[in-house]
Parts: sequence; structure tokens; C-alpha cells
Amino acid sequence: MKRKRMRSDIAWSAPDRITVKNRDLCNDILGKLSLGDMAFLELTDRTPTAQESAVFNAIAVTLVEHGLTPSALATRLTYAGAPEAMQAAVAAGLCGLGSVFVGSMETAARMLQEALPQPDPGIDLQPIARRLVAECRARQEIIGGIGHTLHKPVDPRAPRLFEIARANGLHGPYCRLMTLIAEEAQHAYGKSLPVNATGAIGAIACELGLPWRIVRGVGVMARAIGLVGHILEEMRDPLAYEMKARTEDEATQHLRSGARG
Amino acid sequence: MKRKRMRSDIAWSAPDRITVKNRDLCNDILGKLSLGDMAFLELTDRTPTAQESAVFNAIAVTLVEHGLTPSALATRLTYAGAPEAMQAAVAAGLCGLGSVFVGSMETAARMLQEALPQPDPGIDLQPIARRLVAECRARQEIIGGIGHTLHKPVDPRAPRLFEIARANGLHGPYCRLMTLIAEEAQHAYGKSLPVNATGAIGAIACELGLPWRIVRGVGVMARAIGLVGHILEEMRDPLAYEMKARTEDEATQHLRSGARG
Amino acid sequence: MKRKRMRSDIAWSAPDRITVKNRDLCNDILGKLSLGDMAFLELTDRTPTAQESAVFNAIAVTLVEHGLTPSALATRLTYAGAPEAMQAAVAAGLCGLGSVFVGSMETAARMLQEALPQPDPGIDLQPIARRLVAECRARQEIIGGIGHTLHKPVDPRAPRLFEIARANGLHGPYCRLMTLIAEEAQHAYGKSLPVNATGAIGAIACELGLPWRIVRGVGVMARAIGLVGHILEEMRDPLAYEMKARTEDEATQHLRSGARG
Amino acid sequence: MKRKRMRSDIAWSAPDRITVKNRDLCNDILGKLSLGDMAFLELTDRTPTAQESAVFNAIAVTLVEHGLTPSALATRLTYAGAPEAMQAAVAAGLCGLGSVFVGSMETAARMLQEALPQPDPGIDLQPIARRLVAECRARQEIIGGIGHTLHKPVDPRAPRLFEIARANGLHGPYCRLMTLIAEEAQHAYGKSLPVNATGAIGAIACELGLPWRIVRGVGVMARAIGLVGHILEEMRDPLAYEMKARTEDEATQHLRSGARG
Repeated sequence: MKRKRMRSDIAWSAPDRITVKNRDLCNDILGKLSLGDMAFLELTDRTPTAQESAVFNAIAVTLVEHGLTPSALATRLTYAGAPEAMQAAVAAGLCGLGSVFVGSMETAARMLQEALPQPDPGIDLQPIARRLVAECRARQEIIGGIGHTLHKPVDPRAPRLFEIARANGLHGPYCRLMTLIAEEAQHAYGKSLPVNATGAIGAIACELGLPWRIVRGVGVMARAIGLVGHILEEMRDPLAYEMKARTEDEATQHLRSGARG
Repeated sequence: MKRKRMRSDIAWSAPDRITVKNRDLCNDILGKLSLGDMAFLELTDRTPTAQESAVFNAIAVTLVEHGLTPSALATRLTYAGAPEAMQAAVAAGLCGLGSVFVGSMETAARMLQEALPQPDPGIDLQPIARRLVAECRARQEIIGGIGHTLHKPVDPRAPRLFEIARANGLHGPYCRLMTLIAEEAQHAYGKSLPVNATGAIGAIACELGLPWRIVRGVGVMARAIGLVGHILEEMRDPLAYEMKARTEDEATQHLRSGARG
Repeated sequence: MKRKRMRSDIAWSAPDRITVKNRDLCNDILGKLSLGDMAFLELTDRTPTAQESAVFNAIAVTLVEHGLTPSALATRLTYAGAPEAMQAAVAAGLCGLGSVFVGSMETAARMLQEALPQPDPGIDLQPIARRLVAECRARQEIIGGIGHTLHKPVDPRAPRLFEIARANGLHGPYCRLMTLIAEEAQHAYGKSLPVNATGAIGAIACELGLPWRIVRGVGVMARAIGLVGHILEEMRDPLAYEMKARTEDEATQHLRSGARG
Repeated sequence: MKRKRMRSDIAWSAPDRITVKNRDLCNDILGKLSLGDMAFLELTDRTPTAQESAVFNAIAVTLVEHGLTPSALATRLTYAGAPEAMQAAVAAGLCGLGSVFVGSMETAARMLQEALPQPDPGIDLQPIARRLVAECRARQEIIGGIGHTLHKPVDPRAPRLFEIARANGLHGPYCRLMTLIAEEAQHAYGKSLPVNATGAIGAIACELGLPWRIVRGVGVMARAIGLVGHILEEMRDPLAYEMKARTEDEATQHLRSGARG
């Protein structure tokens, strides 16, 4: 009962060669592509130009490490229970990269791509920005990619990423539209709501031609790198048990004292 | 009840700056470090030299993509059930990177580091290789990092990776010892057992100073990149359901026909 | 910097006793509560009546095993790569219990609870059902919990679960509303769309007082049991590698034959 | 290229019926088997006797809830980041059920089954216990299933579980051997090392005929239930963010104060 041909164009192996994305792994990739460029190849089926490489690596690097996030703590707690299965500790940390954190990158990229499916160089972006902000307000939705609870007045990563994009000729209509959306939102809500890191990354991902549905994946792959770093620190200077002990102690104190009374 | 100070040196954020590994993310890292070099920084607390960068990126790139592995299929099946949670699909794929696959890299690196805790340049590696092979034989253990079921007579990635290491001045005692182990094993077992990709990666990781306990992590972070690539292909040209339907159909045929009888 | 008291009422341990949900584990729970009743206690903070126990166990049991689902295959593939970490194989399988599969249970329960926040015994359910179906049609949304691609004309689990609910005095307004929705949908769409297993489970979960946000959790806990069963079969009679080999072989055939030409 | 027949005996579905373990799900299982008995069926291919049911449910129930474990905290942190993917939060928590926690159950069951592959009723268990303890001491291995850091002088779950086993005629040679091992260890190490919960569960799992390789699975399935309970509490009274904020604040204080100086 074959209903459909199964097909994958990614890779295959023969005894004497491995082919990845139509390239010979040993001769055309190893020693020639960096890890970031290999990631770009996975996402676009082509190697990046020098400019694309600079910009793609910058957005991916931004997403590697955010310190002791819930995700990093989940990885460390998991490692504490199963040090023989480090891969499962990284997996546990990745599981939390959902709507609350990396999701806003996807939301921003989706909004931009749906508003500009074919970015025409002569298009007037201002009315599009105004409409998007008005629509979000009407639906009482949060606009993805602007404002930040900690980084005030401005998330320093956003202007830096836009600067790198500009220096590489990749600050195009999606980046401009994202900036206009932030300006319109400031007018509409009467408070400063500058583009944040996820907004800049979402916009730059659009410039690089990544479909919005895979944009979250850049965050997932980058964070996997950071989570391995947290495991290494947890091996050397663990904090998971101490955090667990203190949390348990405080959170169940009312039960214990009741029992003693 | 504080028993221990919790401490992390990895990163922290102030409103106007993010510090990662004692560097200012915006000014010292973004636009300056590639994704692979950022991974090296996570693992070693320093930026790589140009030579270390070339070699580290090469081993990481080798691990990104192995085609339709059990891990990639687990990711695709998971994505089919929860397309709204791509991060969980990558996590599912990573969960299988255990003893059977990436584990051999760790085994090889451990063997090499335990045999050469302080690699003295004048050390005679031959007797060490002989002893290691003899010990593995006596314990009836498989020697990690040599031989391959598909890549015969030789895994083409291993000589290529050693070549890149040599070109960058990083083919040192661990690489030589790994090669000697393969030669001794050939003598001992009477069949060709050349160094394979995981053996070369394990040895090169030792040259780069990575502790063996974290070596598996290089495979985990690299494969996360490849798994995002599989999700992208699964979005566009899915195979998970077809694979599932055929497997179910064949595997339960005896139950169905019994029921009809 | 304490912003908020952390508190958990679930469990605590003293040297001589363990307290779970305000009960002494050894004297009040072990030997007195079955696994299903313990699950009910976790979800409702009380032990079930005999009737609730019968009904809750029935819906949970329904969700344990669906054969070679994508989820079960992800578990088996993961186990093949990391047999030393069975817990990660179960985790991989659970990761796929998203919107496509168990999600419909949650959708049905949410629809019912939002339509009937306080189920008044005298309420006329017919117009509510009509309105819900009309609203779903207007939004072009699929109505959760009705129809089935395989189980035709009727999913046999749904009438059986409603029968068990009725026999235990728990076939109330949510079950009736679910049935009326199916009837209205049949009128509206002109085809048979009877309540399916997830619709019946969603409705019964409402009768038991479970908040819709946790209803998916009944599927997750139940399926964890089934996935352990798949690991046991995979240990004894593996199919993961064979499935992988065949899939890879077919899916990359076009690459291989091109290479040979 | 078919190398091997794929086969699964667990379940299959026809339009009008679902068959699980050779039973009709609707008529033979639903309303007849409780969740715990369904789990027993998954693990043994048969329904339990009343005695087996009582004992199996007791060991499974013991494993459901241990309060704010690292595993429960990983689930809560993951839920905080991806509340739309509850299944991934449970998965994250399960990933940590490795060698440190549930592993000791597996170690105890393995030791018992390897020592008593065919439990002969007339066998003298004392010398076996003595040998096992002597061997562990010689290898400087920890003996699984005895002693406890918190529950002193005795883990109250162990005698309670043995009591339930005895009341149901299932306190056989494995339970006796486990107890003798604890007594021998007390002699050998000169301190009280009574059977703990994992030792009792491991021994009882042997009495029930579960192969040691699947014993960890009882813990995995049971804990999945408890983790859903933690998600429900986290929905209502979250602690993940507060725990994260405090941990981050303390752990990076040295970095912040250095930066200010």
C-alpha cells in the first residue's frame, strides 16, 4: 500500500563518499564552510555570500546565550538527574523555546512576510506599518518584536544587528518596515516601543529569504549551543541541586510547619 | 537554609548591555564571532585562534547532517503531530543521540585523555596504543573510533579531518595515538579497522583541549542544526505519515488477517 | 530580591513520612488508591467517588494505546539510539502529542466549558449547539471532537464511553451538548459527523470538573504508559532500524541513481 | 530491499473496532480495566490477578509524586516558556529520570534477577546476599536499593510496600533476598542500610515477573502523571519565574557588581 513516494534531498552516503545538499561533504564542505554557513546551507539549500554569512552568523550568535533562562535551568536540572544522557538535558532545555521566548521572532517574521509577500522596491511602507499597528490594536494583540521589559530605553542588540545588516547591504524593506512599525506603535500607544532583538532578527531573517515558519528554528539551533555551555558549567560548578533545595524548602514550608504544629 | 552559593560566569544582562563570557555581546561578539567560534567560546571560555577555528568548525560541520537517521525521523514524526512546537521536534530528535551514535566520539576522547592526561611531546605512543588495544580485547570491549559498517575500506571523513588538523598545526599526540590504536587493532584483530569519523573527531577534540565529558555536546549542538533542516524539508515534502502508514500496515498485517479469518 | 512567595501544596517529605496532597502516602494512599485514582487526585485534589473512578479510568485507559502512531515510532527510534536512556525515548514520543492528535480533546473541552461555564440543569442546549456550529462554520474552523477518518460510520469508543458515563451517573449536560453539536454539524455539513473518542473524552472530562487547560494532560499521562509498552516490544522485536533503512533507501534513491549515472 | 519483517503485536484499528493486546478495546477493556491494570497489561501481555493488581498499583502509585524534584522543576520551567505545548513540558521533566533517581530501581532489579534467574523455592538466599554485598564492596560500587539520605532510620515506603506484597501473596524470594542484602550490607559497612523505596519496588517488580530492563519504565509512566499535576499547579500558582529570577540574581551578582565597580 504505497500512497506516496518518500523523498529527501538532504543527504546520502556511499561507502566512499557522503553527499550533503548536493555537495561532497569531504571535499566541498569540510574546511570550507563554517558551522554558521553550514546552518545557512541547511536552511536555504545554498551557501551564503560573504554578506549573507556575516548577517546570518550575527543573528544566530545573538540567540546562543541568554544566561540563566528557564530553558538553561531546565537543562541543568535534567543533567543533574541523568548525567549519562547529556543529549536529553539539551532536549529538555529546548522544549521550553515556545511562544513566550523565541516565538516573538516568528510572530515578527510572519507579520512582515504576510505584509510584504513580494517586496517591491518602490512600495510605500508607511501606510502598511500604520495598518498593521491598527489591526493589532483592534484585535488587542501584542505586536511582536517591539519593546522590552528589561532593555530600556532600547534593546542594544537591535541597532547593532541593523548596523551589521546595513554594512552588508542587507538592511532592506523588511528591516525598514519593522522600524516603521515600532514608530507607529509609539504614536499609537504613546510610549517608547523600539524594535527589540527578536524584531530585528525576524526582519533580518526575512531579508535573508528564510520562510517565517522556520525562523524559530534559528533560535532553536543557536540555543542548543548555549545549552551545552550550561552543561559544562553545571559539571564544574553545579547549581541545580541548590536551587532545587531552596525552592522546595520555601515552597513547602507551610506544609512542614503545619505538620509540626 | 543556604548551603552553597549559586554562581554562573556565563552571562548577565543590564538594561543597556548584555555580557557573555566577559565580553560585551554587541560590541565584542556580534559581527566579530561566527556561530562556530561562538560555540568554541561556550566550550573553552576563549575565542579560537584562526587555526583552532578552522579545525573546530570542521569537526562541528561534520556532525550537522547524516541524512535520514533515526534521530531525523523522530524529529519529523514529532513535527507531524505538533507542528506548532518545532522546538519539541528538535528535542525529540536530540533525545536519541546516545551511546549508539554520538557516544563513540565520547568513548574515543575519554580513552585518549585517560591514556594521555598530560601529552608530553617526547612520549612513546606505540606502547600506549598496544596496551589500550590489549586491554579492550581482554575486556571484550569495542574500541571506540575505529572501523565502520558502511564506509569501507575507509571512512573518508577521518583522513580529511586529520588533513585539516595537520594544515592548521593541530595534528598532535592525540591524533597520532588514535591512528596508532587503529593500526594496533588491525594487527590484533587481523582486519582493517581504520580511524573513523568519530575517532578523528574525538582525537581532534582532545587536541583542542575539550574535556571528554563535553565532547558529545559538540555532536548535540551540531545535530540540532541539521534537525531544523529536516523540519524545513518535512514542511515542504513530508514523509513522516507515509512512513508511519506503511510501517503500521506491514507490522500489524498478521493481526488484521487473523481478525478477518 | 524576593518578589513573590514560592509555594507548592503538592507534597513534602520528612524523615519518617511522605505527605502527598495532604494525605500520608504510606497509610492513606499506598494500597488504597489505584494508579488511575492517584491521577485523579493529582488533577482534582480529591479522591474520586466509585462512579468518578470508573469514568475517569475509562477515559484514561482509552488514551493509553493507539498502536504504531508517529509518537510510538519516535519513541522506538529514540530508544534505538539511546537504549541507556529509556526516559528520553518516552519523552521523545510525548513531544509529538500536540495539536494534531491529543489537541482535539482540548479543543472540544474548551468549546464546551466556554459555552457552559456554569451548567444549569434547566438550560436549553439545542440553541447553544446550533450557535457553536454556526460560529465554527463562519470562522471556517474544524469542530473538535466529531467525525473520524478511519472509524466510520462511528468511532466505537465514543458510544462506549458515553455508556460508561451514563451507567455511573456522569452523562450530564456536557455530554449532551457534545452530542447535539454532532447532530447540528450533520445538518449543517450534510454528512455524518458523530462524536468521536476525543469528543467523548473532552465532554466527560468536563463532567468530571477538569479545567480544559489540563485535559491534554490526561492524554499525555496515559500515552506515557503506552510508550513504555512500545519500548518493551522494541527491546524484544525491534523495528526501528528496519523502518529507517527502508525509508532512507527509498527516499534517497534518486540521489544515489543520479550519482551512479 | 526488505531485510527483516516489521511486526508489532500491540494494537490495530479497523473502522468498527480497536484491538489492543488481543482484546477488543471497547468491550473487553474500557470499563473493565483500571489505568494501573492497563499498564500491567502493557508490560506483561496479560491482565493482573486481584493480588497482582493491588501490588502493581501500589508500586506505581509510590512513584507518581515526589514533590518539587529537579524533574518537576524542569517541567514547570518548560511550561513557563511554552504553555501551548504541555506535552513538551512533561517530556522535559521525564528526561531527567536517569541514573541518579529512578536508575536505582533498575539497578536493584537487575542485581536480583541476575542472582536469581530461576527462583527455586528451596534455594538458600543468605549466601547469595553475602556474595552480592562482597562483590559490590570489592568493586567499590554502591548497592542499589538500600539506605536513604533523608528517610532515616528507615524509608517508610519500603516496609509498607513489602506489607502490601505479603498481604497479596507476592512477598517471595526477590523480596527476601533484597532484605537479606540490606542486612548483609549493615554487617559489612557497620551502619544501618535498610531497604529503601527503590529497593522494595525493584524486588516487587521481580516478583511480578517484569524484566529488569523495563523496570525504570514503571517510574517513567508514573512520574508522567505527577508532572501533569505540577503543570496544573504551575498554571494556578506559578513559581518557575520567581525561582529563575532569584537564581539568576544570586548567581550573576559577582558579574554585576564587578561591572558597576
